[in-house]
Amino acid sequence: MVHSFLLIGQSNMAGRGFLKDVPLLFDNQIKMLVNGRWQTMWEPINHDRPTAGVGLAASFAATWRLKHEGEEIGLIPCADGGTSLDDWAVGEVLFEHAVFQAKLAQRISTVAGILWHQGENDCSLEQSSRYQEKFSLIVEAFRRELNTPDIPLIIGGLGDFLSRGRYGAYFTGYPAVNEALQQFASTTPNCYFVTAAGLTANPDGLHFDAVSQRIFGIRYFEGFHQQKHILAQLPDEKGIVDSISNRPLSKAEKAALLEIRFANGELALVDLEMQLQNL
Amino acid sequence: MVHSFLLIGQSNMAGRGFLKDVPLLFDNQIKMLVNGRWQTMWEPINHDRPTAGVGLAASFAATWRLKHEGEEIGLIPCADGGTSLDDWAVGEVLFEHAVFQAKLAQRISTVAGILWHQGENDCSLEQSSRYQEKFSLIVEAFRRELNTPDIPLIIGGLGDFLSRGRYGAYFTGYPAVNEALQQFASTTPNCYFVTAAGLTANPDGLHFDAVSQRIFGIRYFEGFHQQKHILAQLPDEKGIVDSISNRPLSKAEKAALLEIRFANGELALVDLEMQLQNL
Repeated sequence: MVHSFLLIGQSNMAGRGFLKDVPLLFDNQIKMLVNGRWQTMWEPINHDRPTAGVGLAASFAATWRLKHEGEEIGLIPCADGGTSLDDWAVGEVLFEHAVFQAKLAQRISTVAGILWHQGENDCSLEQSSRYQEKFSLIVEAFRRELNTPDIPLIIGGLGDFLSRGRYGAYFTGYPAVNEALQQFASTTPNCYFVTAAGLTANPDGLHFDAVSQRIFGIRYFEGFHQQKHILAQLPDEKGIVDSISNRPLSKAEKAALLEIRFANGELALVDLEMQLQNL
Repeated sequence: MVHSFLLIGQSNMAGRGFLKDVPLLFDNQIKMLVNGRWQTMWEPINHDRPTAGVGLAASFAATWRLKHEGEEIGLIPCADGGTSLDDWAVGEVLFEHAVFQAKLAQRISTVAGILWHQGENDCSLEQSSRYQEKFSLIVEAFRRELNTPDIPLIIGGLGDFLSRGRYGAYFTGYPAVNEALQQFASTTPNCYFVTAAGLTANPDGLHFDAVSQRIFGIRYFEGFHQQKHILAQLPDEKGIVDSISNRPLSKAEKAALLEIRFANGELALVDLEMQLQNL
């Protein structure tokens, strides 16, 4: 049975890292939910905007796979860029959409965790002061709707670059959101906070870059796996990134990649057939 | 109120045309449903596979816009590659997913039509002989579930290239599916058949190429608009493709495109700011 994870939050959960900046992660045992069915994961996973790119979910899944030889993991993409906690309130469309997707996933998997990254849109003094109160209603409702009262919830901090970027003026209050997230995690059962310390941004100063998203996903996994808060950089982040990036592909995976390149017009039929024969 | 259209079927509805082969269609008044909310359309619209590309929906919408100055159209992408009529049967996950998406759209639009393209997976003698019987159950159920008993349904034919391509052996029965689709359209109220005559394929001999998808979308629109079957190429397909491809962009649209290029790392911040000022 596939172990699946619900991805919710705003753009940094959807992912805005540039695909060109990191090696492809391709693994037939990492799935993503598409139209209610599992497909092999392919980034971007969470197509919320034309700018969708690398998020933390791919490396989360790849790190999970290091500890789960032969097992399958599924990702349920429901994050949406630029959305506030109010947009995620119970009864709002984002909440209902994510519950529906998770219930589709429950037909074909065990939903084993929820990954949340959100807060940039709640950085004002007024919004950040109400973060815990609003977020706890949302979390309780997800756990209730999915009938998984103890499901682990991993929540990540906002990047320290936020107040310095192009849109910095909107984000001066980001430490208050980080404080609220950490406070929430320390008072909510089965909820773990993961720091964004040391992570860097795209030129927009707003979105984690692809290299940082790979690391962030590893931290999310460690929060989930160790069932504890990750409050500092992990000792071997780079080594784990290397491991997942250099995983040897099976023959079937190599063939699947060739078929994708052919179908996308990047490989001629004669070359496809020759390369398939040589696998 | 947005007029919206449900996109269902298999890969040629999702779209596999190469983006590089056709000009961008970008129009703030053409929307796509993402997480239950409208976003400005951006191809690929229907991210069912890593190979998703240009489908017929974009030019359908752009042609609709030629006749609806100042109005908004929305697309509801639910097609899934390689799926048979049995996969779309009432109660199966594709059907339920599409109904859910259409109901989300109904909160914020009038669902004004259903666009269907499917049949490659039902080309065998046995499958094609049961096409009408199976398909009518699906259509009746969509109309009932959406509470739109008279909603127009536009269905397109399979390409004449199918039996000659790399996978040709699977598709020798495609004329029987075309016959069934045409028969269905001629006996079902508010259902119009659109020919694929003259359209061409990607090197896979399986998927309509991008140029053909642009034309196919125009035929789908004419079927919808004129409420009649389109049984031959239209006299001015090329002229309409030119019209929609060369539509002048508003200042807001130009700015949005620049912001997308910046967020995707294709434009430096200093160039973004300069080009925004020069708009």
